[in-house]
Amino acid sequence: MAVSFSAGPTTLPESVLARVRGGLEDWERTGVSILEIGQRTPEFEALAARVERGIRALLGVPPSYAVLLLPGGASQQFAMVPMNLLGGRRRATYLCHGTWSHLAAQEAGRWCEVLDAPAADAAYVHCTVNETIEGIALDALPDADGLPVVGDWSSALFAEPLDVERFGLVYAGAQKSLGAAGLTLVLVRKDLLGEVLPGTPTAFDYRVHVASRSLHATSVPFAWFVADLMLEWMTAEGGVPALAAAARAKAELVYDALDGSSAYVTAEPSAPLRRSRTTITFALREPGRQARFLREARERGLVALEGHASVGGLRAGLYAGMPIEGAERLAAFLWDFGQPQ
Amino acid sequence: MAVSFSAGPTTLPESVLARVRGGLEDWERTGVSILEIGQRTPEFEALAARVERGIRALLGVPPSYAVLLLPGGASQQFAMVPMNLLGGRRRATYLCHGTWSHLAAQEAGRWCEVLDAPAADAAYVHCTVNETIEGIALDALPDADGLPVVGDWSSALFAEPLDVERFGLVYAGAQKSLGAAGLTLVLVRKDLLGEVLPGTPTAFDYRVHVASRSLHATSVPFAWFVADLMLEWMTAEGGVPALAAAARAKAELVYDALDGSSAYVTAEPSAPLRRSRTTITFALREPGRQARFLREARERGLVALEGHASVGGLRAGLYAGMPIEGAERLAAFLWDFGQPQ
Repeated sequence: MAVSFSAGPTTLPESVLARVRGGLEDWERTGVSILEIGQRTPEFEALAARVERGIRALLGVPPSYAVLLLPGGASQQFAMVPMNLLGGRRRATYLCHGTWSHLAAQEAGRWCEVLDAPAADAAYVHCTVNETIEGIALDALPDADGLPVVGDWSSALFAEPLDVERFGLVYAGAQKSLGAAGLTLVLVRKDLLGEVLPGTPTAFDYRVHVASRSLHATSVPFAWFVADLMLEWMTAEGGVPALAAAARAKAELVYDALDGSSAYVTAEPSAPLRRSRTTITFALREPGRQARFLREARERGLVALEGHASVGGLRAGLYAGMPIEGAERLAAFLWDFGQPQ
Repeated sequence: MAVSFSAGPTTLPESVLARVRGGLEDWERTGVSILEIGQRTPEFEALAARVERGIRALLGVPPSYAVLLLPGGASQQFAMVPMNLLGGRRRATYLCHGTWSHLAAQEAGRWCEVLDAPAADAAYVHCTVNETIEGIALDALPDADGLPVVGDWSSALFAEPLDVERFGLVYAGAQKSLGAAGLTLVLVRKDLLGEVLPGTPTAFDYRVHVASRSLHATSVPFAWFVADLMLEWMTAEGGVPALAAAARAKAELVYDALDGSSAYVTAEPSAPLRRSRTTITFALREPGRQARFLREARERGLVALEGHASVGGLRAGLYAGMPIEGAERLAAFLWDFGQPQ
């Protein structure tokens, strides 16, 4: 089997994939596949409750926070956050270091004035913990001057320690950590939820989702099912401390190979940023060799190493589901390919 | 294996489920599972294009209509329709015969005055072709007085002939016909798309999805993958004419058994409604026997026959993916259980 370094969805452990296939045959002795199970059944409600418990346990989410798994990708939160958290205020702060934080700020601009530094009358401070396109991450949380911090953790969740109580709201697309695209995890301090902006669709009102435990409308039961299996696997791996240590180790293997050869170019961001541990971007010093790089990588079973279309180059996604062996295989290839010719 | 009569997701043909499991091993010789494939890859883009072609061919969608598969359930369209189609108008007509049409009208009421009959200054006429909770269907399309008709086809798609050109917009949750929850199919006449209402989130703007072929933000690639397999299966079955004939035959088997015994109670709606062919609601004349009914059905491998929680009773979902054998097994059980004691 090949290993995918996509920075979209995470690679999945083979043991999880085997259980996913099993659930498509006969899910938990219901006699039917998970795809045929309605989300209003006791069996599914038990699964959903287990997923919430698993997330609370793994991330240490206090009872004062709601745990939501909402349909749609993380970028839907770019609208939901201002629609729900502006309250009576007209300004919000967006700390922008890369493509995704810029897009979040742009969407918020439909409903409020966007500031680039904390201000007393801002409703919150938004930051993007890891930028997948630029391959950079925040090295430390911003000083928010007492304002609630909203964090996009899509590409860092479970791969870095997260102190939930330092955030008013955390969101993360499920496909990078919980295994299947279609849902976005939202952790939100319940006391921050008040009136939404006029004209907010029901599907964008966090309070509706809190009251219905995320099952107000048709959700994505298959993605909950995969999340349940991933949570069990991550717990068995040792939880966030072990996953964060593994993320460091995986990234180190790859950066050592990149830094060890003059064939590669990587960026060195300055404070408050550092190089990403989960979405490593790099390029070949001789861009003309890139097609060969991708072909030889593919021959070794290493796929989806293309950089984002907007910037080109190369990229390796090393999310929670990537086994250390995947990073080892990539590092070995990088060393080999990087040998002087 | 059991047969699920859930009115949420459709039962899936075993041949489709087998191919789904295969795609979780090695999808189309990529070496990785479909869950690990990014939606920005050439492989996924080819899949998405094939799905659009399949839908256009099966439903006879003219080029003047866009085909969208959008994240979220059908109820998200309750907001998207007025936000996109009101244009400069302040009124829209909602023909309400059951729970879902009432909910659609209620959501639209956030942005416009809701009328219960066509009027010259209404932006469109909305109708729900099949109501899953009440088990009723529209027997004929409403007279819309020349206004664009918006149809919720969630629980009738592929099971009844659909003349797309009689609609300005058609929407349908994918889980009842295309196989996996998480996406909603939207067919929309492109000339109806103009300015959206102020404050419409980007994710709710049809024009954004038309321009990006539904892949503007993180979608649900797994649901596209299942849709592709279902479309191929439905085409091989003979397309909508054959599926609609099968839907009639399946419904007839079940209604014959229900009507043939005094043990059952069914409703007989009056024009413009008729009994549903896809979501058959019924009850036992002696409600005290319901637990036994469900237990004995389960013993025969017939599951998820509970009615919607809001109305109780019993219900059989017979969507496109339900094989005729499933309806035959249910009918046989209904005859047996309905024998005088």
